[in-house]
Amino acid sequence: MSTSVEFLFDFGSPYTYLAYHELRRIAARTEASIVWTPILLGGVFQATGNHSPAQIPAKGQWMNEDLKRWARRFGVPFRQNPHFPINTLTLMRGAVGYQMRELRFADYLDLIFRGMWVEERNLGDPAVLGAWLDGHGFDPEDFAKMVADPAVKERLKHHTEAAVARGVFGAPSFIVSDELFWGQDRLVFVAEALGSPVTG
Amino acid sequence: MSTSVEFLFDFGSPYTYLAYHELRRIAARTEASIVWTPILLGGVFQATGNHSPAQIPAKGQWMNEDLKRWARRFGVPFRQNPHFPINTLTLMRGAVGYQMRELRFADYLDLIFRGMWVEERNLGDPAVLGAWLDGHGFDPEDFAKMVADPAVKERLKHHTEAAVARGVFGAPSFIVSDELFWGQDRLVFVAEALGSPVTG
Repeated sequence: MSTSVEFLFDFGSPYTYLAYHELRRIAARTEASIVWTPILLGGVFQATGNHSPAQIPAKGQWMNEDLKRWARRFGVPFRQNPHFPINTLTLMRGAVGYQMRELRFADYLDLIFRGMWVEERNLGDPAVLGAWLDGHGFDPEDFAKMVADPAVKERLKHHTEAAVARGVFGAPSFIVSDELFWGQDRLVFVAEALGSPVTG
Repeated sequence: MSTSVEFLFDFGSPYTYLAYHELRRIAARTEASIVWTPILLGGVFQATGNHSPAQIPAKGQWMNEDLKRWARRFGVPFRQNPHFPINTLTLMRGAVGYQMRELRFADYLDLIFRGMWVEERNLGDPAVLGAWLDGHGFDPEDFAKMVADPAVKERLKHHTEAAVARGVFGAPSFIVSDELFWGQDRLVFVAEALGSPVTG
């Protein structure tokens, strides 16, 4: 059995937020490590011809109920963000930046996912994002410099293109031993691939 | 708790075939009755702006693996049909016709789902369909007359439009007490709504 799962994520996807919580529990239970891969979902959509499910009005309406059911099932706090969809380019560059620094990456993930999907913040707005970072011990000026770094921009682009090359077309995506799984609703298969079936 | 679940289905959807098997088990376990509603998925797609997931090449490729995983999970025989996608208009009219006659409806469902998703038949081809019906005790001439009946055509159209009006955008769909669930991957929620959580 593999002891590692790659998690390809974008903060802008509410299902990815739910998976972010549930995957960590599965990883803890199976003693698997998580390889974090920030991607730009908009870039994946563009490259694959895919699009947000919310673009189909009837599906978007159903999603609002579906998300609540999954949040209940996973036992995760969740509120639909009224500013959805939010441009996550800067946010994803931030994830790449902290990951490259090997510094505060986990704190940053937690802060941004919480701001987006619990506290309903419009983190696509630079002023709102700056205040949100500042209020939680992150230096907005340092952040701004970091996300403007060409190496950070390039790394995010690379992650996104490499994901598409490996068959990724949406988020959340999970890869275990070259096997691709898409969606929080496939975490049962991810858990199986990691050696532990999910019950309930 | 409700004791009835409506199943909105089209033979052309492989995920619907898988749900057709699993839903009956859930219904048996929860002592719920199934209300069968044939719909034309193509009509639903047209009305809602939705489309087949297989239209996104990367998603279609992933689906082939995903379908196998669900078939294994549900313990259902499954083979991808090489003729997919298949025009199901006549097949769905057949379902409506036998349902209106209150005659051999269950046998017909079983025969067509099996032909499509186990025996790899191209049942969109009238000659193949005629032989398939003939070989299993259905009279192809009687069938042809039945599916040409304006009342049958009208009923399928009505079911499809009414489904869209109730928020349906894809298949399989399930309705329990006005609550809509979409996808074989939401059968856990259907089972819950019927009073029995699914485990494993």
